[in-house]
Amino acid sequence: MKNIDRRALLQRLFYPHSVALVGASERSPWSQMLHANFQSTGFDGPIYAVNKGGVDAHGYPGFVSCRAIGAPVDIAFVFVPAEAMQDTFEDLIAAGIRAAVILTSGFAETSEAGARLQDWLVGRAREADVVILGPNCLGYANLAIRAPLTPIPIHPPLLKGRVALVSQSGATNSEIADMAHDLNVGLSLYVATGNEAMVDIAACVDFLVDDANTEVIMVFAETIRDTATFRAAAERALAAKKAIVMLKVGSSALTAQVAAAHTGSLVGDDRIFSAACEQLGVIRVYSVEELIVTASLLAHTGPLATPGVGIVSISGGACTLVADRAEVYGVDLPAFSSATKAALTQAVPLASDPINPFDITGLAVRDPSLFESVIEAIAGESTIGFVGAIYSLPWNEKWQQVPQLESIGRAFAKLDKPCALLNQFLRPQTQKSRDILAATGIPAAFGGIEEVLRALGHVKKWSARVLEHAPTRPMAVTVPTSERPMSEREVLDFLSRYGVPVIPTRIAATREDAVAIAAALAVPVALKIASPDIAHKTDVGGVKLNILGDAAVADAYDTILASVVKAAPQARIEGVLVSPMRSGGLEILVGIVRDPQWGPVLAVGLGGIWVEALADTRLALLPVASVQVKDMLRSLRAAKLLAGFRGALPVDLDRLAEIVAAIGDAALALGDHLETLEVNPLWINGGEIEALDGLVVWASTSVVSTAAH
Amino acid sequence: MKNIDRRALLQRLFYPHSVALVGASERSPWSQMLHANFQSTGFDGPIYAVNKGGVDAHGYPGFVSCRAIGAPVDIAFVFVPAEAMQDTFEDLIAAGIRAAVILTSGFAETSEAGARLQDWLVGRAREADVVILGPNCLGYANLAIRAPLTPIPIHPPLLKGRVALVSQSGATNSEIADMAHDLNVGLSLYVATGNEAMVDIAACVDFLVDDANTEVIMVFAETIRDTATFRAAAERALAAKKAIVMLKVGSSALTAQVAAAHTGSLVGDDRIFSAACEQLGVIRVYSVEELIVTASLLAHTGPLATPGVGIVSISGGACTLVADRAEVYGVDLPAFSSATKAALTQAVPLASDPINPFDITGLAVRDPSLFESVIEAIAGESTIGFVGAIYSLPWNEKWQQVPQLESIGRAFAKLDKPCALLNQFLRPQTQKSRDILAATGIPAAFGGIEEVLRALGHVKKWSARVLEHAPTRPMAVTVPTSERPMSEREVLDFLSRYGVPVIPTRIAATREDAVAIAAALAVPVALKIASPDIAHKTDVGGVKLNILGDAAVADAYDTILASVVKAAPQARIEGVLVSPMRSGGLEILVGIVRDPQWGPVLAVGLGGIWVEALADTRLALLPVASVQVKDMLRSLRAAKLLAGFRGALPVDLDRLAEIVAAIGDAALALGDHLETLEVNPLWINGGEIEALDGLVVWASTSVVSTAAH
Repeated sequence: MKNIDRRALLQRLFYPHSVALVGASERSPWSQMLHANFQSTGFDGPIYAVNKGGVDAHGYPGFVSCRAIGAPVDIAFVFVPAEAMQDTFEDLIAAGIRAAVILTSGFAETSEAGARLQDWLVGRAREADVVILGPNCLGYANLAIRAPLTPIPIHPPLLKGRVALVSQSGATNSEIADMAHDLNVGLSLYVATGNEAMVDIAACVDFLVDDANTEVIMVFAETIRDTATFRAAAERALAAKKAIVMLKVGSSALTAQVAAAHTGSLVGDDRIFSAACEQLGVIRVYSVEELIVTASLLAHTGPLATPGVGIVSISGGACTLVADRAEVYGVDLPAFSSATKAALTQAVPLASDPINPFDITGLAVRDPSLFESVIEAIAGESTIGFVGAIYSLPWNEKWQQVPQLESIGRAFAKLDKPCALLNQFLRPQTQKSRDILAATGIPAAFGGIEEVLRALGHVKKWSARVLEHAPTRPMAVTVPTSERPMSEREVLDFLSRYGVPVIPTRIAATREDAVAIAAALAVPVALKIASPDIAHKTDVGGVKLNILGDAAVADAYDTILASVVKAAPQARIEGVLVSPMRSGGLEILVGIVRDPQWGPVLAVGLGGIWVEALADTRLALLPVASVQVKDMLRSLRAAKLLAGFRGALPVDLDRLAEIVAAIGDAALALGDHLETLEVNPLWINGGEIEALDGLVVWASTSVVSTAAH
Repeated sequence: MKNIDRRALLQRLFYPHSVALVGASERSPWSQMLHANFQSTGFDGPIYAVNKGGVDAHGYPGFVSCRAIGAPVDIAFVFVPAEAMQDTFEDLIAAGIRAAVILTSGFAETSEAGARLQDWLVGRAREADVVILGPNCLGYANLAIRAPLTPIPIHPPLLKGRVALVSQSGATNSEIADMAHDLNVGLSLYVATGNEAMVDIAACVDFLVDDANTEVIMVFAETIRDTATFRAAAERALAAKKAIVMLKVGSSALTAQVAAAHTGSLVGDDRIFSAACEQLGVIRVYSVEELIVTASLLAHTGPLATPGVGIVSISGGACTLVADRAEVYGVDLPAFSSATKAALTQAVPLASDPINPFDITGLAVRDPSLFESVIEAIAGESTIGFVGAIYSLPWNEKWQQVPQLESIGRAFAKLDKPCALLNQFLRPQTQKSRDILAATGIPAAFGGIEEVLRALGHVKKWSARVLEHAPTRPMAVTVPTSERPMSEREVLDFLSRYGVPVIPTRIAATREDAVAIAAALAVPVALKIASPDIAHKTDVGGVKLNILGDAAVADAYDTILASVVKAAPQARIEGVLVSPMRSGGLEILVGIVRDPQWGPVLAVGLGGIWVEALADTRLALLPVASVQVKDMLRSLRAAKLLAGFRGALPVDLDRLAEIVAAIGDAALALGDHLETLEVNPLWINGGEIEALDGLVVWASTSVVSTAAH
């Protein structure tokens, strides 16, 4: 299906004006819960009850079938038993209903028979142009239009907002929505995708990128099935300045088992997933608290053009903690200018040399208005793009003090930059809290210090990404090739046509050739057997390294041939490759492997012990732009070695990044049958860079060339 | 002061039976807040009001002075202005009051004059055997005896518990106590130490190790001033199985500034602090949420002899998240035995191959009693020492469902191992929550998943530490020596007497000596100038490496002497050192430096790029036991190299750890004037280990020997 068509389908699914509750009955708990939600949200379209008896339920008129309703219906919420599903679905189609949420379980998640029933359902839905969410799903609530197509309780007051939530798990969806409510975070749309027979997480994210009511998209995922759609959606989200905040579970070995037990999801390689998020500008988080605080803060601030944060607190301890955690999470706390320092010292005489975060001290207990002048002074700093005031927002009857909050609210009202109250701890925001926010004019509150600083770190990084407009793909589209390089020499030749400098290698057909080639090079050489039939050259005595001088070269040539002929008498021999030895410098490993979920993934790292003992590599989905490769190289633990450690020449990082990206392009051009392409080593000596060996593995073939330089 | 005497003083300070409020007045906000606390806690001893007019306040009888009270008083809470402090304190002494909490500010934290007043106060207190807390402090609340010597509001209901809290900052103390109350965590004693004129954090921790009402000690510290007392207290706490949970702020560069602005605390090297915590079994945490959840969980579980955790949840998503985070925090989730699997499958037919964490599925919505049978089955596993059931504990009116909680409570009542309800998120526990806990018999609830798993990771590590009874110090006490090794040779000789194998080195007084020594070694040798006056031997041409053969040795000897005589004509020359060259193997760096707070600290790491490019070192306070050094070596990033990476000989880790610990002992024996002792490299080739070079720097002297092997 084209993306545009799918978006239209999802628009139909998520924006209905009339609903049939198929399976409705006053005795059914599901029916009761749905009704409670329609009541509490105040959905204003017609609602029909469909059941065997055609009886009314909860005051909704009853019908024996969807056809019997006799009026157009936008969506059916179906919770009949699985046995009744086929008849029900045919009735729904016949009634002209073209969207359905299917709560009923007993499909692919339980048995083979269930899987067949699910296939039937999808087939019929496609034929009849019906979009279905589920089956085995708890539905969605579109709070923007007060449409609660879910039995998950929607608690009053209805908190509409600009944060959406997509999750496979219905229980988790419910719990996250609950916690968001506790934290006073308004949602636009929240969806549980269940079995994802037609509509999966990627499709929902793709839809939400265009949803006018949504600014930030929260995802709780066990797996991303349709990675291509997800990747394209993430790129569109970045362009649209809508953040995607992702809590992806399944990083542990055990989790793979748990997920298998739970929904049968494929749990992919977690490092690749992290690399994909990094590359796509998706914010990856690790707890629900972090998910909600990050998403709601982003919905409040939007992208910050100025990343600096200014903080004021009445507690010196909190200031110290903020400074610590800001450093950990990469949050900038710009030092104050002398003008601001003067203003702060005037307001708070105790502060002789004011620093950020600013300790307003206990003076603000006696004189709450200090907050106003201090916040205004801090917000005046051009290096500060977000102002936070740490003060507890009351949530129960314990606290009565609000003059400080009023003062903070007065200051915030005058600011032309994002600002918020920061709760010292992660605490609920109750009706009392909302009343105080409304009364003081404080636009929003977030907490606690730990979550807020972590979230501010995400905001900073994401904002920079959004605002730099860096391409996530190289501009040039890779053109597929029909070439199928096999031997080391073919691989290196192929790479060189993609702009990868490779070691000059010539093939010697005779001993004399070899001697002449080596003599022309005038440095020690490597000799290697050239044969399309020999994968592991060293195993058959097909490699001699560091050979210098005519006699030695001649001898090595003879030794290689004799050895290979003896060890592999059937092999076709094309000659002996002669190339100069390289020494000094550094060796980089560049490898491309095919991930079953994400396709070709590039890994880069320093060779030898760095990769083997430290697993010091960075990953990226292909295609990858050289600007990103440069970031990857710089984030290696061994990055200091690239900068010219201990007197070695500093590596030309721009050039190196271009070459690594070119290797990625070359791999991509080789198409879907490529399993592995490895350049090991890519030799670097300052600005000199050369691929010394290349290896390709094709799907359903074995290794055809091996590194044995 | 002896520790035992200080503990008696603190007992007097923290366990009073009668109180004088010095500065009490119904108009004073401090006075009002104190009174409210005495009311809400129900302190049952006599309370007196002391003020200029001698008038009653809040119903407490009024007196013009402490002397005028005419009855014995255990403690004075003093909040008169700083100007009145001297007269007030003399009055207090004259009245025989021997403990005081001093709220008044204007002492060392503000000015030189204030510092002098503080010194006077401490001097008089010592003379008169009075213990004072503060000044400039918000006091303490001893909830165990309902004694609220603090204006920090104590909210009803009074939650007495077994967790203590010590903090320098009064505001932070108040906020942490508040948050603990919100999370239903009962406290024993909480103390703000303020200016710490007599009683600092270390003294309070030391006292609390013996406090019968305290099981777990929470600390919020900007600095630990008295590290010796703290270290001894931490060791006693480990022996007493009382956990210390430490939120130490001041890790950032900025924080050093903030703390300086705030209390003038010295903020030490954060890596050393972390190493000290690791060594002393102190649990270091990074947020207040983590502090409270970890401490309260520890107070609930105590040390766990069986570290395995069994988890049940109604949400598959939560199970997956738990599995992920358990792996991150090192929490064991043992697989179920076949008997347990059979029991679980019988209870929950959907679970075909039950795994831990166990997804009880939506079946438990319809049949809450499933929790009971499932929890019993899980708790039957001998590998499981703690059982957690994930389910939301209601805190507001949103939830009504409790049959599941009743079922969980029934199961928990039958268990003979620690168990608790686990909130999926970090949520408050209100009176409604407490009522439900009481009604269901659930002993405690902790949340959310992220904080609980992090806390369980701490519990596991701390329990292992407590139960292994590993010595934190070597058994043998290091005997101080009067030796003062200076040159490389003296240093190596000194080390060898502490059991450190050193490279055999002989001094050659003549060319012929050198040749003979080298010839006897029969391997390539290193020659180095021996002079007490030459620090940097290479700078004066004083080193020749890898010399083989009589002629080459003779030549090197002459070259060194000629070069040194020219470059350093005044230097006394003792001869030329001749030692065998070592090659292959690995090089370790062992360095001891003196930290201004913690004294001598040992650093160990692999030499060369590992230390220089990766800063791959581990630290420990001295003395250090070899068992701990072994752990340090194993936790190096480069640890794989020690295990015999790439065909190299595996290092004899036990032997290496003993030698490194011996270097630490040698450094300690050199006493307080030692600034630095460095062995670089300590050469290792499998079981062969040798110090190749040694360097000592003494305080107030310059470098006297340098590494130039």
